[in-house]
Amino acid sequence: MTVVKPGGIIGIIGGGQLGRMLAMAAARLGLKTCIYSDEPHVPAFQVTPLQAHAAYDDRANLAGFAQLCDVITFEFENLPAEELSYLAGLRTLRPGPRALETTQDRLTEKSFVQSLGLATAPFFDIASADEAAQALKTLGGRGILKTRRLGYDGKGQAKISSADDAARALLQFKGAPAILEGFVDFAFEASVVAARGAGGEFAAYDPPENIHENHILRRSIVPGRLTPAQSHQAKVIAKTIAEALDYVGVLAVELFVMKDGALLVNEIAPRVHNSGHWTLEACACSQFEQHIRAVAGWPLGDPTRHADAVMENVIGAEADAWESLARSGALHLYGKREARLGRKMGHVTRLKPKS
Amino acid sequence: MTVVKPGGIIGIIGGGQLGRMLAMAAARLGLKTCIYSDEPHVPAFQVTPLQAHAAYDDRANLAGFAQLCDVITFEFENLPAEELSYLAGLRTLRPGPRALETTQDRLTEKSFVQSLGLATAPFFDIASADEAAQALKTLGGRGILKTRRLGYDGKGQAKISSADDAARALLQFKGAPAILEGFVDFAFEASVVAARGAGGEFAAYDPPENIHENHILRRSIVPGRLTPAQSHQAKVIAKTIAEALDYVGVLAVELFVMKDGALLVNEIAPRVHNSGHWTLEACACSQFEQHIRAVAGWPLGDPTRHADAVMENVIGAEADAWESLARSGALHLYGKREARLGRKMGHVTRLKPKS
Repeated sequence: MTVVKPGGIIGIIGGGQLGRMLAMAAARLGLKTCIYSDEPHVPAFQVTPLQAHAAYDDRANLAGFAQLCDVITFEFENLPAEELSYLAGLRTLRPGPRALETTQDRLTEKSFVQSLGLATAPFFDIASADEAAQALKTLGGRGILKTRRLGYDGKGQAKISSADDAARALLQFKGAPAILEGFVDFAFEASVVAARGAGGEFAAYDPPENIHENHILRRSIVPGRLTPAQSHQAKVIAKTIAEALDYVGVLAVELFVMKDGALLVNEIAPRVHNSGHWTLEACACSQFEQHIRAVAGWPLGDPTRHADAVMENVIGAEADAWESLARSGALHLYGKREARLGRKMGHVTRLKPKS
Repeated sequence: MTVVKPGGIIGIIGGGQLGRMLAMAAARLGLKTCIYSDEPHVPAFQVTPLQAHAAYDDRANLAGFAQLCDVITFEFENLPAEELSYLAGLRTLRPGPRALETTQDRLTEKSFVQSLGLATAPFFDIASADEAAQALKTLGGRGILKTRRLGYDGKGQAKISSADDAARALLQFKGAPAILEGFVDFAFEASVVAARGAGGEFAAYDPPENIHENHILRRSIVPGRLTPAQSHQAKVIAKTIAEALDYVGVLAVELFVMKDGALLVNEIAPRVHNSGHWTLEACACSQFEQHIRAVAGWPLGDPTRHADAVMENVIGAEADAWESLARSGALHLYGKREARLGRKMGHVTRLKPKS
């Protein structure tokens, strides 16, 4: 089993805020990080002198990066399958290619989740507007068409209720394979962030309730409205998925909490997750440190929560109010130069004594 | 008043673990840091791409550094007075030269503390073995001879009980000016870590009890044995000192807690302090972030402690046990390459629910 000793180097593919917070967590443990990103001015480049700026399919640079690093991980799960296999041939990847390939494609992912006996929203593989029209009948006339790959924050999604809607959406998707999901009438959304170590040990954080606005996470609240039994069940779901994928690292499972109390799996993120940012203040070991511990082959940290927390994203121009945000709680800003519409610029976590 | 906006650069003089943790705290806030150190492989160089490796009296490099940075601060308080004045002429320094000059010299520092009506151990300015012998009489025959400048972790100190002892110690100090301090029969040691903002606002952390071994901090415990009244008094002492120095940033005041309950000021550290490391896990705003907030002209963060904590230093070869240390709590390793005897390699903080 690969164990990265203090002073060793963790390679991180992707240079956004997740990579930035992973790099900072690694530094706490005396580990170095090298960030690989295809963009030049990414947030994570500001927190480590070791950095590679190259395309994600640039094999010469990927090879040099792999040689420098003791283990490679990801903050960005959409590396093409061929490059994943190529990298996996050079260096230990954690999580492994199978976990990434399973979760990169919504159809594969949902089929995998159902194969574990876990519930999801109804879904259909869609190749044409006709297939969509057919599926819509089963779904009561409406649903959400989504590209199978590369969607996030509501991108690559369209609500449809007719064959015409479907045709328009498929055109917008430029022929990318899609799935049609039925609407689910949930009470609220939640997620569970958990880790599986290189030796198979498992640790889950308390699952927060999540509030989305315009398809973007607005707020995570812990404890939210989940009952103790639902919290427990959410952790069991995460464990089932992590074990089935032989997963190493932190993963997040987004859930729908139904009005009858049932939990449906919405999607799996094979990485640290926005809904786990509150762990930076409310737990001694954050999700970022937990991921680094797992991928470095270290013992997992204690996921105990010692305060109640509300995490709120700072989106777009909201970051202009940094001074009052800094007054209001634990502010994190990601070092992004432009506050574009809908862009996650930072987050604020507010703690209260544990209820 | 200088305010460093997100994206701005904080210059940090000194590249040890304190500089490293300051740089990481700045990154949380979307601030960049440039580290200036006279050594090439320092811990803080691992966490920021902006770094200057040059002598502390290299004016050309100091000038370039000052030009790059929006404000300059210190993790290392012993910059020579001339370079301090030079830098202060180029860029805002926080804390200012006066705070550093007052605390760099044990004689100036203790006289300053007494001038505020605060108690210290008895002390004498010593220029010769004869003067030491004279002072020893007043002190009941024994005391600690200390260089006035540049001592830390017990370096530049000697217990003496005769003129001969004094002569030997002064020889060891190579003629450096010294003071002789009387022993104080304290019940235990404590410290208070507090911050004063650029606008004069003040925030103090709960004062920990500190256990030293071989003159090196072994452990900080919060809450320790201080009574609520002593904790309050410790914060008032820190506030009195910070205001008298027109201080900006975090400072630590080391205290002797006497058997009769009185608090004596031992020394002032014009910087973040080892006895405040537990704030990283037990408070939403750590001492490092608090210092960055203060020197950047930001609102101070909330110093509320939401867990009980014990911080233990990892010294020298103890770092070899990193794996079991990682299992035992929140481990921080500083990225030092060699585990020399007595060298602080990291620390572990263990949290418990607030008592």
